[in-house]
Amino acid sequence: MSENHPPAGADAPARSGGHPLDWLDANEKERVAAGLRRRVRPRPADEPGVLDLAGNDYLGLARHPRVLAASAAAVAAWGAGSTGSRLVTGSTDLHAELETELAAHSGAEASLVFSSGYLANIAAITSLVGRGDLVVSDAVNHASIVDACRLSRARVAVTPHCDVDAVAAVLADRAEERALVVVDAVFSVDGDLAPLAELAAVVRRYNAVLLVDEAHGLGVVGAGGRGAVHEAGLAYADDVLRTVTLSKSMGSQGGAVVGPQRVVDHLVDTARPFIFDTALAPVSAAAALESLRILREQPELADGVRRRALELAEGARALGLNATTPSGAVASVLVGEPDAAFAAAARCADAGVRVGCFRPPSVPDGISRLRLAARADLTDAEVARALDVLAKAV
Amino acid sequence: MSENHPPAGADAPARSGGHPLDWLDANEKERVAAGLRRRVRPRPADEPGVLDLAGNDYLGLARHPRVLAASAAAVAAWGAGSTGSRLVTGSTDLHAELETELAAHSGAEASLVFSSGYLANIAAITSLVGRGDLVVSDAVNHASIVDACRLSRARVAVTPHCDVDAVAAVLADRAEERALVVVDAVFSVDGDLAPLAELAAVVRRYNAVLLVDEAHGLGVVGAGGRGAVHEAGLAYADDVLRTVTLSKSMGSQGGAVVGPQRVVDHLVDTARPFIFDTALAPVSAAAALESLRILREQPELADGVRRRALELAEGARALGLNATTPSGAVASVLVGEPDAAFAAAARCADAGVRVGCFRPPSVPDGISRLRLAARADLTDAEVARALDVLAKAV
Ligand SMILES: Cc1ncc(COP(=O)(O)O)c(C=O)c1O
Ligand SMILES: Cc1ncc(COP(=O)(O)O)c(C=O)c1O
Repeated sequence: MSENHPPAGADAPARSGGHPLDWLDANEKERVAAGLRRRVRPRPADEPGVLDLAGNDYLGLARHPRVLAASAAAVAAWGAGSTGSRLVTGSTDLHAELETELAAHSGAEASLVFSSGYLANIAAITSLVGRGDLVVSDAVNHASIVDACRLSRARVAVTPHCDVDAVAAVLADRAEERALVVVDAVFSVDGDLAPLAELAAVVRRYNAVLLVDEAHGLGVVGAGGRGAVHEAGLAYADDVLRTVTLSKSMGSQGGAVVGPQRVVDHLVDTARPFIFDTALAPVSAAAALESLRILREQPELADGVRRRALELAEGARALGLNATTPSGAVASVLVGEPDAAFAAAARCADAGVRVGCFRPPSVPDGISRLRLAARADLTDAEVARALDVLAKAV
Repeated sequence: MSENHPPAGADAPARSGGHPLDWLDANEKERVAAGLRRRVRPRPADEPGVLDLAGNDYLGLARHPRVLAASAAAVAAWGAGSTGSRLVTGSTDLHAELETELAAHSGAEASLVFSSGYLANIAAITSLVGRGDLVVSDAVNHASIVDACRLSRARVAVTPHCDVDAVAAVLADRAEERALVVVDAVFSVDGDLAPLAELAAVVRRYNAVLLVDEAHGLGVVGAGGRGAVHEAGLAYADDVLRTVTLSKSMGSQGGAVVGPQRVVDHLVDTARPFIFDTALAPVSAAAALESLRILREQPELADGVRRRALELAEGARALGLNATTPSGAVASVLVGEPDAAFAAAARCADAGVRVGCFRPPSVPDGISRLRLAARADLTDAEVARALDVLAKAV
C-alpha cells in the first residue's frame, strides 16, 4: 500500500462533501411521496385458501407431479448447479435435449438456452445489431428489450404501440443497412397481441429482421401453445427469430433464443451473456423440459388457459370494470392512480385472491392496473370466486 | 391486415438485396480462420475417471449430500419455479432467509438476490450511476460489469489493470459529482486480487463509491471465505458495496448485491433486472442457502481451496510452465496462441483432466491460457495426477 492511499476505515480521510450515497435518501422520499415505494413480501410455501392470479405459471406446471419428479431426479443426477458457463462445464445433456425439443415445438431449426429470458433478450439483440445499425422497438416492449436495445449501441427508434406503419416508415427512411425490429408477441401488462404477420411483411419488404419475444406466447398462444409466431405461419421464416422464457408457462427458470441454426451459431461465438454467464442450473433445465413434454402431450392446456383468461376478462366487464381483452393468459383491469390500484390489490389479497398490481414505471401509460393471470388448471368455482372478490375490491 | 402489408411467406415480396442475415456467414468464416469458432459440448451426468478442474464449484458443494437434500426438499415444498418477479409472486421465505444469511456472512446490513450474478452487476451499476455520472472500471473486469457500465449511460473511464493511481487521477479530474469505481475482487481469468484497501481509500478521499464483484471471492478469499472486502476490513464501510454470485462456491445459480440497507431499498424500487425479471427458482435459493450454511459451519473449506490452488500453481511452475499466483481458487497457465491452448486443453481432456481454455475475447491480453480451478475437496492424488497430465499436454 503506498503512502498516497491510506486504508479506508477509522483513520481514513474525512469526506470533503456529504456522503456519496445520501442522494439515495432524497430519492426515496420522492418515491414515498409519489406512492411508488415498493416492498418485498416473501410468501410461505403453503398458503391454504389463497387463489393465485398474480403468478405466471400459466399452465399450472410449476407444481405438476411429473415436473417435481423430473426436478428431483435432475438434482440427484447433476447436483445443484451447472458449475460453469455454457462453453466450459455448464452445458449438460439436459440443456441439449431442451434445446432440441424447444426448437421442434416452436418449429425452428435451433434454439439456445440462457439463465433467464432477460439475458436471452440481451444476447439476441446485442449480437445482431451494434453501432451503425438500427433497432426498432415497440413503445410497450419489456424492460429487458429496452435494456438490450440501449446496450447494443445501435440507433434505437421507438415506435408507437403496435403501429406497423410507423415501423415501415422508420425502416424505409433508414440510412443503416442492418435493421432489427423487436416486439413482444403478447404484451406483458395488458396481454394484447402484436400484429406479427404485418410486421413480418414489412420487415421482409425492407430487408430487416424481426425478433419476437414469446415470453407470454409460448405454451399459451396458438394451437398447442406453439406461440404467436407459429400461429402467424412464421415459424420457419428465415428472417424471424424468437426469444422465450422458461419461467412462465414452463413453470421453471431460464430463457432461450429460437431461430435459424446460423443465428444460434453466431450467439455461441459472440453473445456475452452466453459466453460469460453461468449456465442455467440443470434442475431448471430438467423442469422446463418436462413441462414442455407435458404440453406436447396435452396441447389442450394452451386452449384451457386462454379460455380462463377470457372468462376473467368478460366477467370483470360484466361487473362494469374496464378490462382488456386477453389474447393470451393475462387480462388487466384498469384502475387509475397507483394508490387506488394498490389498495384494490390489497383488498383482493385480504379476501384470499392474489392479483398483480402494476404501477409506474411498469405500466405503459401511467394508468395503474390490476393484472389477472389465468391458469389452465383454474376451476369454474375459482373463476367465480375471483370475480366475486374483484367486484368488492375495485 | 392493410393492403400495404401483405403477409410474409410464399407470396411475400422478393427481397431487394441479399438476405439480411447473410453477414452472419461472412462473420463466421472470419472466426473460423482466426481459430475462434466455439462449440457447445454437453457433458453427461456421469463421467467416471474425469477430474474436473474447469468448473467453478470451488468448495465441491454442488453435489454435497446436504445441498442435494435441501434442493429436493425445496422442489417438493415450492415447485420448480418462483412463478413471478420478486415484487409479485417471486419472493419466497427462502429468498428472504438467503438474503439475511448472506448479509450476516458478508458482514453487511443487507443483501438482495437476483437470478444471476450477471444481472446483479447490471442492477447495481445501472441503479447507482446514470447519465451525467462517472463510472471507473478496471480494464480486466468481467463482461457483466462491462455491459453494466455501458448500459448505465454514465461516462465510462477504463483504467489499466489494478492501477490505483489511475483511478485516483480519474476521480480527481472528474467534472461529475457522482462517481462509482467498479472492480472484480478476484479476477476471473488469472485469479489475481484487486488492491481493495487502496481503492477504498481513494474512493473515500474523492467522495466516490466502490463496488466490488466478489464472484470469485465469496467462499474462497479470507477467513471463512467471507470474501476479499471483508478480509480488507471494509465489510461495514458505508461506501463499499459488493455483488456476489451463487453459481460458483455456492454450487448453485443466482447472484446478489450486498451492502447498506438503503442501497438495497433503492434497488428494490428502481433496479430493472430486479423489478422485471422472474425471481431465482426456489430450488436454487435453497441450494445456495444450504451451501452457505455448510461454509459457515466449516470455515476451513475456504482455506482448503486456496491451498489446493497454490499447489497446482507451484506444481505447474516446477514443471517449467508459466503459471499465475492464485489469490483464490484459480491459477492460469499461459500458453499463447488460441490453437495451441485449445490443443493442450484437448490433450488434458483426452487424459481425463478437464481444464478451462480461455481464448480471445475472454482473455485480457490476447494470450490464450489454460485455467485450473481448484476445489476444496481435491485429494493429493488428484493434484499429482493433474500435474502429471499437464506436464505432457502443454
Ligand atoms: C415480455 C417478457 N420478456 C422477457 C421477460 C424476462 O424473462 P425472465 O423473467 O425469464 O428473465 C419477461 C418476464 O419477466 C417478459 O414478460
Ligand atoms: C467476476 C464475475 N462476475 C460476475 C459473473 C456472473 O455471474 P453468474 O455466472 O452467476 O451470472 C461471473 C461469472 O460468471 C464472474 O466471473
